[in-house]
Amino acid sequence: MKISTLSIGDEVIFGEIVDTNVAHISSRLYDAGFQLRRHLCVGDNEPDIMDAIELLASHNDFVIATGGLGPTIDDLTARAAARATGRRLVLNEDALTHLKERYRLMGREMLPSTEKQALLPTKISLVPNPIGTACGFIIPHKGCFLFFLPGVPMEMKRMLEETVIPFIQSRIKQKTTIETRVMRVLGLSETHIENRIKELARPREGLTIAYCVSFPEVEVKLRAEGENEAQLKDLLDTTAAKVREHLGEHVVAEGGETIDSVVAALFRKKGVTLSLAESCTGGLIAAKITDLAGSSAYFLEGAVTYSNESKIRRLQVPAELLEKEGAVSSATAMAMARGIRKASGSDIALAVTGIAGPEGGSEEKPVGTVYLALAGRSDCTAKRYQFSWDRERVRSMTTYTALDWLRRHLMALPDGETED
Amino acid sequence: MKISTLSIGDEVIFGEIVDTNVAHISSRLYDAGFQLRRHLCVGDNEPDIMDAIELLASHNDFVIATGGLGPTIDDLTARAAARATGRRLVLNEDALTHLKERYRLMGREMLPSTEKQALLPTKISLVPNPIGTACGFIIPHKGCFLFFLPGVPMEMKRMLEETVIPFIQSRIKQKTTIETRVMRVLGLSETHIENRIKELARPREGLTIAYCVSFPEVEVKLRAEGENEAQLKDLLDTTAAKVREHLGEHVVAEGGETIDSVVAALFRKKGVTLSLAESCTGGLIAAKITDLAGSSAYFLEGAVTYSNESKIRRLQVPAELLEKEGAVSSATAMAMARGIRKASGSDIALAVTGIAGPEGGSEEKPVGTVYLALAGRSDCTAKRYQFSWDRERVRSMTTYTALDWLRRHLMALPDGETED
Repeated sequence: MKISTLSIGDEVIFGEIVDTNVAHISSRLYDAGFQLRRHLCVGDNEPDIMDAIELLASHNDFVIATGGLGPTIDDLTARAAARATGRRLVLNEDALTHLKERYRLMGREMLPSTEKQALLPTKISLVPNPIGTACGFIIPHKGCFLFFLPGVPMEMKRMLEETVIPFIQSRIKQKTTIETRVMRVLGLSETHIENRIKELARPREGLTIAYCVSFPEVEVKLRAEGENEAQLKDLLDTTAAKVREHLGEHVVAEGGETIDSVVAALFRKKGVTLSLAESCTGGLIAAKITDLAGSSAYFLEGAVTYSNESKIRRLQVPAELLEKEGAVSSATAMAMARGIRKASGSDIALAVTGIAGPEGGSEEKPVGTVYLALAGRSDCTAKRYQFSWDRERVRSMTTYTALDWLRRHLMALPDGETED
Repeated sequence: MKISTLSIGDEVIFGEIVDTNVAHISSRLYDAGFQLRRHLCVGDNEPDIMDAIELLASHNDFVIATGGLGPTIDDLTARAAARATGRRLVLNEDALTHLKERYRLMGREMLPSTEKQALLPTKISLVPNPIGTACGFIIPHKGCFLFFLPGVPMEMKRMLEETVIPFIQSRIKQKTTIETRVMRVLGLSETHIENRIKELARPREGLTIAYCVSFPEVEVKLRAEGENEAQLKDLLDTTAAKVREHLGEHVVAEGGETIDSVVAALFRKKGVTLSLAESCTGGLIAAKITDLAGSSAYFLEGAVTYSNESKIRRLQVPAELLEKEGAVSSATAMAMARGIRKASGSDIALAVTGIAGPEGGSEEKPVGTVYLALAGRSDCTAKRYQFSWDRERVRSMTTYTALDWLRRHLMALPDGETED
């Protein structure tokens, strides 16, 4: 059973918009147990649209096309679809009635040129559009069903759910179900991860593992295909447990969770409060912590102390220390963490100082040198990291590494207690 | 001259990620005067990749393929490219040297299986990857040049700029030149912008205008096509001046500039220093300011004061004021701005407090209510805004609005002087 998609529109082919429709369609098909085979995209150009329709119709059972159904002169999909499948264009009375009704509902005058949206190929079934003017349509052609939907994401999504997916489901006998699980891994390369867990995959038994870099994390995707949903869930549970065994604490989040949401849940559960002092990340860690609503329950305060003066004044880092050890040093990181913890009264404090680049590196401390420090009520630890990318990725890697340290620290704490 | 793109990857075909690469490539090609013909996307499946390569090679002069060059077992592009073009896979010594050097720079151990990334087809030219492990490569095949690049957007972009576009430009005789100019507009909708400036377009004379929403900004793209480069530049200069006339201060940046870089340049030029106090944006404004290297020259300090306690302790916001006016009020925003300005000794200070949602709104102050305040040495102003989106967009809109206020404020100051 082969399904492919076709996006039609100059705005996509000229790079004016990112085509999110294909990701939505393929993701919904995948959830429904189908796999997209190919995606093709062409501009608002009649011969190109016709070529694409012919190519896809001859290799697929279903083709879902989006775009080019609007009222303006550059919307050519209906005409191209008619010509590619040997049909005529006629004024479709049902589509026209729908069009008039939509305009009435919007309280807008319908210009005569708008009738073009009801000029559709002969021998089709309409796909109702409950929230827009352009109806979609289905053309059966050479053993393939061609769906044509508007490109407006909101309208396309409704029509996909209400008509297209049920139509496909009703026409094929699905033998198997698909269950998936995503595990987010930090601090191991794609290759290292694969080497540790590839043996867990059992393609013949319907269990596959895919890897996807989402910097600085790697997503490990478990996918199980079979007949019995409960069995598949069991299989994923067992496999996920083995993945955790092999990758250990590098698995930072699972399912719909992210490292931020995991850290947030830990802060709540442990009843610990946090403050932050950031130099090279310039507020990124605080921004990530406050990304989630309700973070004020545990996040007391952040200080962005980019200059030496602000480190001295705001965090009471001794000027002599900065002079002797340098702003980028473990001693400074620890003094920053202690300073913000004391000032804010938080249970723990995390500080970061480093050289994000492109300037400021030295032989001893090249660009990408970062110190993190974590201070509790009575102890303080610093770690040195060496990251080797550009400014943007050094900052992003530092942010995730900081969140991960918080996660590991909180996981080792007994529930509901601070480290006092 | 026909150019098409090919995205390879299960993550794209399964809808796990939105493929932004094609939008970037087509947009950059468009800027360089070329138009993308077709875009095709297939999964990590060798026969499908081979089919796609054969199909595109036989209909195009250039094909830019992305994805599937990673080190893991599901990365099949190099093998499929070799088979589709009748080549063998061999260990490419140059690619291997590059790979070893990258691992050395990262300070990571290179596993033997990583060498797979240097297993490339015979008879190719390498495409250097200055920021990642996987080299790209170029295969000349049946009169078509096939480019293979990694799918990691940052790496792909560098390789596109540095190798692919210059390669294409060197191999075709362009009859006309194309000049483009991007103007970034804040605070006006796409429709409003179009209504104000659409008459400036002169398609018959080669001048077109395109609009692209890049939340919260709208990009206005001027494109001039003709034979004489100097004339085109003049035409763009004149048109850009008219656009500025019609859109006024809503044009926040032009050319390669962004609102951050414009604000950074103004701070340097005016010799003014800044401090920030952020509540609902939680560090996002500071992160944006420190995105650019060298920001320590004018950015003295940021305070992320999410809780009432931290506003009182850190910024000396009077507890009675918070009690009486509320944390989200113009009085609190002004007290925050004055507090951080005094503490940091900066020339100006910007503060933000608001309700990003989804909780915390009231009838009087619904979700999306945001107060910004700007304090100078002797004066302080607050403004209330009502944004109406989700948490993420309220925070993003607030960040841009804050940067825009700094921009407008600094533009009104005489050069090299603070407002004392």
